[in-house]
Amino acid sequence: MAHSIIKQLEELRELNPLVHNITNLVVMNNTANALLALGASPVMAHSPAEVKNVVEISKSLVINIGTLSASWIESMYQAASHATTIGCPWVLDPVGAGISALRNDALQRLLNLRPTVIRGNASEILALAGFSQATTKGVDSTAHSSTALQAAIKLQNSYNAIICVSGEIDYIVSANEIIEVHNGHIMMTKVTGLGCTSSALIGAFLGLRNNTVEETIAGVAVLSLTGELAARTAKGPGSLQMHLLDALYNLDTPTLQRELSIQRYVRRD
Amino acid sequence: MAHSIIKQLEELRELNPLVHNITNLVVMNNTANALLALGASPVMAHSPAEVKNVVEISKSLVINIGTLSASWIESMYQAASHATTIGCPWVLDPVGAGISALRNDALQRLLNLRPTVIRGNASEILALAGFSQATTKGVDSTAHSSTALQAAIKLQNSYNAIICVSGEIDYIVSANEIIEVHNGHIMMTKVTGLGCTSSALIGAFLGLRNNTVEETIAGVAVLSLTGELAARTAKGPGSLQMHLLDALYNLDTPTLQRELSIQRYVRRD
Amino acid sequence: MAHSIIKQLEELRELNPLVHNITNLVVMNNTANALLALGASPVMAHSPAEVKNVVEISKSLVINIGTLSASWIESMYQAASHATTIGCPWVLDPVGAGISALRNDALQRLLNLRPTVIRGNASEILALAGFSQATTKGVDSTAHSSTALQAAIKLQNSYNAIICVSGEIDYIVSANEIIEVHNGHIMMTKVTGLGCTSSALIGAFLGLRNNTVEETIAGVAVLSLTGELAARTAKGPGSLQMHLLDALYNLDTPTLQRELSIQRYVRRD
Repeated sequence: MAHSIIKQLEELRELNPLVHNITNLVVMNNTANALLALGASPVMAHSPAEVKNVVEISKSLVINIGTLSASWIESMYQAASHATTIGCPWVLDPVGAGISALRNDALQRLLNLRPTVIRGNASEILALAGFSQATTKGVDSTAHSSTALQAAIKLQNSYNAIICVSGEIDYIVSANEIIEVHNGHIMMTKVTGLGCTSSALIGAFLGLRNNTVEETIAGVAVLSLTGELAARTAKGPGSLQMHLLDALYNLDTPTLQRELSIQRYVRRD
Repeated sequence: MAHSIIKQLEELRELNPLVHNITNLVVMNNTANALLALGASPVMAHSPAEVKNVVEISKSLVINIGTLSASWIESMYQAASHATTIGCPWVLDPVGAGISALRNDALQRLLNLRPTVIRGNASEILALAGFSQATTKGVDSTAHSSTALQAAIKLQNSYNAIICVSGEIDYIVSANEIIEVHNGHIMMTKVTGLGCTSSALIGAFLGLRNNTVEETIAGVAVLSLTGELAARTAKGPGSLQMHLLDALYNLDTPTLQRELSIQRYVRRD
Repeated sequence: MAHSIIKQLEELRELNPLVHNITNLVVMNNTANALLALGASPVMAHSPAEVKNVVEISKSLVINIGTLSASWIESMYQAASHATTIGCPWVLDPVGAGISALRNDALQRLLNLRPTVIRGNASEILALAGFSQATTKGVDSTAHSSTALQAAIKLQNSYNAIICVSGEIDYIVSANEIIEVHNGHIMMTKVTGLGCTSSALIGAFLGLRNNTVEETIAGVAVLSLTGELAARTAKGPGSLQMHLLDALYNLDTPTLQRELSIQRYVRRD
């Protein structure tokens, strides 16, 4: 597994894929910095008047509904629609799914446009699959990632997207497999937007446009691993955020070979 | 005094209260990170279509007018109005009060909805009380906090809100008391949004919904103290911001007992 | 050359000029922190209902089109128009010039209002001068700064603005000179918004309202130098960002005398 990610990371750093982000106001800076530190090239653009232009020059699109408004929903819809039309891979991050009709309706519209990948925390994936709106408390998950596995499988079957559930263990559900990423650290839940960053890194790897399942695993694993590495020297969530960006920039083959902890299972449902 | 804050901090870390923030575009990331580091759970949502939903699941609301626009004023108004209606405590941070009619009018509308707490710098509190618009220069204060004490008392009397003035000494004016927090550090004025963070932390403690005066003191004191602690090892405002988040995360009973410097006086005006 | 910058920095720290920023959503926090660390006072305000008020109390204006929308374009236009009318110096940062008609049209409107200074990367300056839209890839430059020198000269002649091209060497083109700043570090390209920060620091120095060419050089040189200093101890782009803010705060006369690397040439075109 490390071999695939090592190869993808090398390719990504050579190609510097342009990743178009329509993301929330809280995490924009971190998202851009994480993409740059990894080796990708971020662009943030949200006006309905230019999102199609930006999708066309980008290698992938990341849509994150963290701080929605009517005009941003329209931009997200137009960008995602165009991405699907021209074959540009795109990630949907359903932040706060279940907390309002505004979010639920926007998510249904976006789901119908067939995202390549959906990544959320357990509460969000449960809400998105219609399993439970009661477990949602704002934007932080109140459920363990494993409790959302059935919801992820249902979503995968319904929309033929790759579904990622972030948490103590990260789950990635493809048409054929369930992949577990065991890297990560509990302190990561005390830094805002690391889930959003995971979605952005998935977007960066999807920009290679080679194998969407392998690229999704790479995005999830690289964020969780660099978060884990950062936590080892961090004195708290402030320094964790800084060390994480440094770790993304310095991530190398020996570290990936030594540290990645990933398990793959064939789906039997 | 330390005893009350210690107890509140323990409770906050156990309950992880959800704090709804409608705040400015400059500080959103820091605000979210400070709330997480403290032990609360932030949610940022500003669409008029969902602010009532979010207020309903939140334990408190923080409204900060730093980067206003017409649609955001409408959201703030709806959120604050709903908070007052359902008894959700809320904080008003009047950033840049006095610099434009847009801000002054928005503030008057919000004041009429009866915030639980108002926190600003001296220039903002002076402008809000109608004492002086001439001393306002942008969003940084040009006046010492003590010069705004009469303005704070006037505001307290007029709106029956708890008024906080941040500065070299932080003043908290309740119906019966004037409380001084002597923690803090001058370098904190060189980091953007630490006043906004103070408002957010007040919001977090108000989420305990126990005693609004004690909760307000806790929010003010914890930010000023962790800023002071951070400044001791910081090499400048960049590292101060990072150390502050780490300090919030690591804040413990011995530190609070040793470091807090708070004085309370019965009001005699 | 160091002498002029040392004097300006002293003056800036004494006057704390208020700098009005209408900038992009990605970099607002960093921009505000950089201005504070330098010694200026930032204000962010973007509502059409108040931008004229804010321009009037500010010493300079910085307009950055990184995350455009129709209503923000209107605000930028009104603010820049008022700045030109009342003689307030202003900087235009043409982020992503060439990637969409939305940006190109907005830029043409803003150019017609005669910015005091224009600062961009090579791709942006090339696109703005109509030399090449093909080299633009999102918001990161795909061209070396030297390749944009002719474009910068053309822009300088057309609009009588001072033109800055950021890159390995920073070029500043005035009516009479070409100035090269050799400070900087390649790792700075892995931190989002340092170009935007350069524009903001130019704005801060323009707030001294003394000599626009010298002030522009000071802004460019101080950012590139502090980035270079930060890179010496940084372990990656995360720590570079933090060290840069600390370096701005601590920048002193001996460092400026020892480290600045600037060359000035009389234009002979």
